[in-house]
Amino acid sequence: MESLVFEEKDFFACCGSVRFAKEMVSAAPFASYDDAVVAARDIWFNKVDVKGWLEAFTAHPQIGESPSSHHKSPTSAQFSLWSKGEQTTALATATDSTLQELSEWNSRYRQKFGFVFLIFASGRSTPEILAELKRRYENRPLVEFEIAAGEQMKITELRLAKLFTAKAEGSSVTNA
Amino acid sequence: MESLVFEEKDFFACCGSVRFAKEMVSAAPFASYDDAVVAARDIWFNKVDVKGWLEAFTAHPQIGESPSSHHKSPTSAQFSLWSKGEQTTALATATDSTLQELSEWNSRYRQKFGFVFLIFASGRSTPEILAELKRRYENRPLVEFEIAAGEQMKITELRLAKLFTAKAEGSSVTNA
Repeated sequence: MESLVFEEKDFFACCGSVRFAKEMVSAAPFASYDDAVVAARDIWFNKVDVKGWLEAFTAHPQIGESPSSHHKSPTSAQFSLWSKGEQTTALATATDSTLQELSEWNSRYRQKFGFVFLIFASGRSTPEILAELKRRYENRPLVEFEIAAGEQMKITELRLAKLFTAKAEGSSVTNA
Repeated sequence: MESLVFEEKDFFACCGSVRFAKEMVSAAPFASYDDAVVAARDIWFNKVDVKGWLEAFTAHPQIGESPSSHHKSPTSAQFSLWSKGEQTTALATATDSTLQELSEWNSRYRQKFGFVFLIFASGRSTPEILAELKRRYENRPLVEFEIAAGEQMKITELRLAKLFTAKAEGSSVTNA
């Protein structure tokens, strides 16, 4: 496990904050996935500043939207592929009308909070995600900012797991 | 009191967030200063988003630094005058060495958090401010972000009081 070599772009595909990616490279090597998660949590919650959180949020496509239509993303093809995979359940349970409603609420959310609605979507249906969006919309901005950062961390952990698996299998991760 | 007329630039001089200033104009007229403060708190903590908080923070000069040397400020001459007045005690108690130390810690703070150290400085000496800066430097970014927003609110309240006084006296506030 110690022999796995990670680059900044690997970590950036897990969480789109430059500071996060650089600090992870500094913290490497990791003896295990669990060690990497401990380091990632410390870096994300204690070292990345609020602008870094906003930077990471902007790397995500709007939920319910195909990552390929998210032109502003500075991240790799791997990031888009992962994002799509994490929304499999949501996309399978979506209808035109729920997708339309999701799109409208996403706009309202972004107008209120200034960043995209972020949720750990793996295994969650579109109606569930929509209900959560409406519930969270009522929060005050700082509270919602902290919740979004927590969701980002869950997404990061899942992606780190995929990264470790891919690296262990010897495949190149970031050249999709 | 009901006859006092405020413009967006008046409120912007109290708190340098465009959204804050616009919402205050929408919430006006105010029957009293206390009513204005209630509205201002609600707007600042519940309506202005995290980017608006960062925007307001950038309107401040670094503490211990003359506002006139703060070229990036988009705010009025009134904002600079008020900022200088609020630092009267700090400036009177400053020595070259404490100012030098304050400047160094300000840089460290800004590097960690991504925004200027904000403190309600009225009546506080430079050594007090320096001790507070060092203490707050240990916070994690989100905690410090919320503390800074609280300090901004105290500054806003003091400036709203000055604004009400100036308006009641019939003087033009924002053309210093």
